Amino acid sequence: MSDWRSIAAKKKSEQDALIPNEWRLVSIPSPSEIDVSRIPETCGLLDAIELEITNSDVDVLLESIAKGRWTSVAVTSAFYKRAIIAHQVTNCLTEIFIERALKRAAELDEHLATTGTVIGPLHGLPISLKDQINIKGLESCMGYVSWVGTFAERNAVLTDILESAGAVPFVKTNVPQTLMWPETFNHVFGRTLNPHNRSLTSGGSSGGEGSLVAMRGSPLGVGSDIGGSVRIPAGFCGIYGLRPSYGRVPYAGCVNSLEGQDSAPSVLGPLTNSIYGIKTFMKAVAGARPWLKDPLAVRKRWSEDEYNLADHGGGNKLCFAIMWDDGIVVPHPPITRGMEIVKKALLNAVIDWKPSKHAEILTCLRNIWQAGAQEDFQVVTSPSGEPVISSMDPEDNTPVTDILDARATKATVSAYQLWQIQKQKRNLREEYLQLWEDTVKTTGTGRAVDAIIAPVAANTAIAHGKNRSASYTSVWNMLDYSSLVIPVSKVDPELDLVKAPHKFYNEDDKANYERYNPVDFMNAPISIQLVGRTLEEEAVIAMGEIVDAALKSHH
Amino acid sequence: MSDWRSIAAKKKSEQDALIPNEWRLVSIPSPSEIDVSRIPETCGLLDAIELEITNSDVDVLLESIAKGRWTSVAVTSAFYKRAIIAHQVTNCLTEIFIERALKRAAELDEHLATTGTVIGPLHGLPISLKDQINIKGLESCMGYVSWVGTFAERNAVLTDILESAGAVPFVKTNVPQTLMWPETFNHVFGRTLNPHNRSLTSGGSSGGEGSLVAMRGSPLGVGSDIGGSVRIPAGFCGIYGLRPSYGRVPYAGCVNSLEGQDSAPSVLGPLTNSIYGIKTFMKAVAGARPWLKDPLAVRKRWSEDEYNLADHGGGNKLCFAIMWDDGIVVPHPPITRGMEIVKKALLNAVIDWKPSKHAEILTCLRNIWQAGAQEDFQVVTSPSGEPVISSMDPEDNTPVTDILDARATKATVSAYQLWQIQKQKRNLREEYLQLWEDTVKTTGTGRAVDAIIAPVAANTAIAHGKNRSASYTSVWNMLDYSSLVIPVSKVDPELDLVKAPHKFYNEDDKANYERYNPVDFMNAPISIQLVGRTLEEEAVIAMGEIVDAALKSHH
Repeated sequence: MSDWRSIAAKKKSEQDALIPNEWRLVSIPSPSEIDVSRIPETCGLLDAIELEITNSDVDVLLESIAKGRWTSVAVTSAFYKRAIIAHQVTNCLTEIFIERALKRAAELDEHLATTGTVIGPLHGLPISLKDQINIKGLESCMGYVSWVGTFAERNAVLTDILESAGAVPFVKTNVPQTLMWPETFNHVFGRTLNPHNRSLTSGGSSGGEGSLVAMRGSPLGVGSDIGGSVRIPAGFCGIYGLRPSYGRVPYAGCVNSLEGQDSAPSVLGPLTNSIYGIKTFMKAVAGARPWLKDPLAVRKRWSEDEYNLADHGGGNKLCFAIMWDDGIVVPHPPITRGMEIVKKALLNAVIDWKPSKHAEILTCLRNIWQAGAQEDFQVVTSPSGEPVISSMDPEDNTPVTDILDARATKATVSAYQLWQIQKQKRNLREEYLQLWEDTVKTTGTGRAVDAIIAPVAANTAIAHGKNRSASYTSVWNMLDYSSLVIPVSKVDPELDLVKAPHKFYNEDDKANYERYNPVDFMNAPISIQLVGRTLEEEAVIAMGEIVDAALKSHH
Repeated sequence: MSDWRSIAAKKKSEQDALIPNEWRLVSIPSPSEIDVSRIPETCGLLDAIELEITNSDVDVLLESIAKGRWTSVAVTSAFYKRAIIAHQVTNCLTEIFIERALKRAAELDEHLATTGTVIGPLHGLPISLKDQINIKGLESCMGYVSWVGTFAERNAVLTDILESAGAVPFVKTNVPQTLMWPETFNHVFGRTLNPHNRSLTSGGSSGGEGSLVAMRGSPLGVGSDIGGSVRIPAGFCGIYGLRPSYGRVPYAGCVNSLEGQDSAPSVLGPLTNSIYGIKTFMKAVAGARPWLKDPLAVRKRWSEDEYNLADHGGGNKLCFAIMWDDGIVVPHPPITRGMEIVKKALLNAVIDWKPSKHAEILTCLRNIWQAGAQEDFQVVTSPSGEPVISSMDPEDNTPVTDILDARATKATVSAYQLWQIQKQKRNLREEYLQLWEDTVKTTGTGRAVDAIIAPVAANTAIAHGKNRSASYTSVWNMLDYSSLVIPVSKVDPELDLVKAPHKFYNEDDKANYERYNPVDFMNAPISIQLVGRTLEEEAVIAMGEIVDAALKSHH
C-alpha cells in the first residue's frame, strides 16, 4: 500500500489534469484578493451568452431549454466552464467529467429536437452533486484516501431520478473528511473557500456545493444535512438551501458516514439561487415516487394543497416566531441585524420564539452520533493509514471538544445505553412539539405559530477552522423539522458594529462574542432559517416564498 | 418490598372483585369445554337487545347510536357485560372500570340529545385497549409485577384521539410479560385462552384483544405489533387485524418494551370483526392529525385517492401474489387450504410469490431486538424480583432459543455493532423492494404485484407454549409493510388431513410438520395476511375489502 499522502496527491493531480487548458484562468487571483465572486464575470473566459446563461435561475433555464432558446449542451457547457473557474478560486469540486456530461446533454437536445417534448421537469438542467451521491462509473471517495480508486457500480437512487427527470449531473463537490464538520477540508481534495471572502470558510459539510452554487457555477446542487450540512454552506455562501425531513428525498445508493445510525440520520437536500429552484427539485423528486426505489423514502406525494398553505389558514395572516438566540450562544451583530430586517419586512407579523432545552437536545444528538462514530471513522481510515482529522483549523491541530464533535474520544456505549439516549430523544421531541402547539395561545390566529425564523448559526461565515458549532441548525435535525435557508444581506462593517458585552450564557457565548470584529467578517452573507414542521416541505417552501418576496420588496 | 407473588395475587384478586356479581357466570364451563365462543349467547346473562347490540359490527353500532336507536350507555353496558363474560372463560382483561366508562357514555348520550350531533366519527363506540395504552388514572402494568401500582398521569395520545372522536375506552386487555411473545401469559394476570378452543393459545402479544374481540366482548380493540402481535392473535382468533406502517398510528404516551429501539419498533393497530371497523379506526386516527400530538406520527392524511386504488389501476385487474411458504417452515394443511380457498375466490387472478432471504431478514430483526433486550427486561423485572419468563409452555420451563426470541442470552453488543446490523437491515429492505418491483415483468398488469397474500403463521392457533415462531409476520415488520389479517375458515378434521412428509427445509420445518394433527387443532380459525407496501394502509384496506367480498361470495 502506498503512503496515503501519495495516493491523495495523485488523485488531486489527476483531478487537475481534467481541467481543459482553455478553461484555465490566465491570472490566478492572489490570496489577498478575498472576494472572488465576480471573477467569472471579469476573467474573460465566459462570453456574453455564457454569462447570461449562468446568471439565470432555474426557472429561466428550464423554460429556455424547453422552448429551444438554449440547448442543454450550451447550458451545460456554460455552467461547466463557470464551475471550473469557481473551482480554481475556491477549490469546490471533486469529480470532473466534462465529456460524459456533454454527451448526456446532447442526447437530451436530440430528444427534444426529435420529439418536441421534454423528457421530464428538469430537462437539460445541469445539476451538481455532493461527492457522496453515486454516479455509476465515477469515484465517491468522500475525501477519504481509503476510498480513492473505488468506482460506483451504479447510480444512487436520486441520480437515477434526476436523470429520468431530464437533469444532467455534471460535477461532484467537496466535503470534509467524515462529513461531520461544519467546514470543508479533507486530505484528498483540500479545503474549499468562501467565494465572498476566501479568508472565511464555505461552511460544511456540503461546502463544495455552497461555494459552487454561490459562484453560479451550478444552477442547482444537492447536498446532505445531518446537523446543518446543507444549511450552513447555504447560509455562509448566501444562497437558498433546504433541509427536508427524513425520507422525503431518497438517500439509497449514496456513500455516507455513520451508516446504520437510524435514529438521527442525514438527509439530502437542494442548494440553489432561488426558492423556485428548491421547489422544482422537491416536486420533481416527489413526482418520481421515490418510495418505489428506496424503502426509506416516505410515501407522500407533492401536495399542492399543502403548498397552498391549507394547514396555515390558506396563507392569510401568517404568524412567524423569531428566535433571536438559542439560549446558548448569542449571535453576532450581523445575524441579529438580519433578523431585524426580516421582522421589518414582515411588517412585525411576528412574535418571539422562546427556545426550550436546546442544550439538552444538542447533547442528546451528539450522544447518538458519538455512540459509534469513533469506530466508524477508524474502520474507514485505517486501510490507508490517513489520520482522522481533529481540527479544521489550518494552524491548529489540537483535538476539538465541541458540543457536536463526533470525533471527541468517548468510551464505547452499549446498544442498550444507546436505546436510553434514543428514548430521551423521543421525549425531547414530544416536549418540543408541545411547546410549538402551545403557541396557539399567543399567535392570535387560532393556529400555533406557522414557522420559526432563526439564525443559521451564531456567526456568519468565519475564519477557517473557527466554525466550531452547528447548534442553530442541528437542533432542527433532531426534531426532524423542515428548514429553509434564505439569504438576507451581507456583513457591512459600518452597520454591524461590535456591541457592548451582554450577560454571557457560558464560556462558549463569551468566546463567540469576543471573536466578532466586523472587518474579519467583511462581505460575509447574512441568512436566516425558516423552520416548519416534520414533512411539511410544501408549506415551508410556500412560506419561504412569502418571506423572500417581503425581503425583496423591503430592500 | 413484598414478595412478587403476593403483589401479583393481590392485583389479580382486586381485578376479580371489580366484576359485578350479577355479571358472573352461574356455571363456569369445565376445562374440557374447549369451544366457549357461544357462551355469551347461551349463558343467559345477555338479553335479546344486548345480544343484538354485541353481535353488530362497527358500522351498525355507529349508525344506530348516531340515529338514536341505541344509546352509548346501552351499547357500552352490553359490551361490558359480554367482555366480563369473555373474561371469565378466556382471561382476556387487565383493567376493569365500569363506572367510569358508563359515565363517559352517558356524557356522549347527553351531548347527542342536547345538540343533535355526534362529537366525532366514533361517537359512543366502546373501544378496548391493550394494556400498554395509557388511560389517565389507571394502571398499565403490562403484566410486570414491578409496574403494579403505577397509575398513568395522562392519556396516551391515541386515547385522547379516540376520546375526541367520541369513543368510550372501556377495558384494557392482557399481554405476555415483555410483549415479546406470540402468546399471552404473565405473572400478574395469567394466561389468555383462545375462545374457539381453550386448549389453544390466543396468540400474542395482543392476545387479550384477540380473545375479547372474537368473543364479541368488544366491537373494536387496539393492539400493538412489533413482530406480529396484532396479526397473530387476530389470525388465531378469527378476526380482522391491521399492522399499519411505522408512525401511521400515534404511539406516544404508551408504555412499552425495548424503549428507545428506533430501528424496528412496535406499531399500534386495530382488531375488529369487519374491515369496515379497520377503516373507520384508521380514518378517524388520520383525521385527528396525530402528527400535531406525537412527533413520530407521519404527516399523511387519510387519502381517498389511495383508498380508491389510484396506485393500483383503480382496482381493475388487480394481481395478487400468493406466498405458499416462506422457504423456512411449510405451513400446516389448514393454512394451505385457506390459501387455496382465497386463490379460488379470486378466480385465480394470482401468481406465486417467491420469497427471498426471509431467514436473513428474520435474523437481522432478531439481532436488532436482542441488542439491548436482556438489559431492558432485567431493568424492569429487578425491582419486584419476578423472573423473566423463559417459556410460554405451562409444562416446560426450559429456556427457549427460538429464532425470534429476544430473551435468548447474548453478549452485549456495542452501539457500533448495532449500527452494522441496522445497515444490513437497510440493504435487505432495498433488496426486497427490488424483488417486489421486479414482479412487473410477470403480472401482466403493467404494475408490480398489488399485494401479497401470505399465511399468518405456519400453524393456526396451537397448544399453549408451542407457538414458538413469528416468522410469517415479523418479516413484514422489518420491511415495514402494511399488513391486514382476514379470516378465511376454520380447521376441519375431515378436510385438513395430515399430508405425506415433504422434503424438509430444516429441523424446525420437520418439527412443525410432526406437530400437526387435525384433532389437536379442532375449530382453530384459518386466516391470511394481505400485505401491501409501506404507508399504503388505504390501499391495503381497499384490497382487503375486495378479497373479503370474494371470500364471502365464494363461501
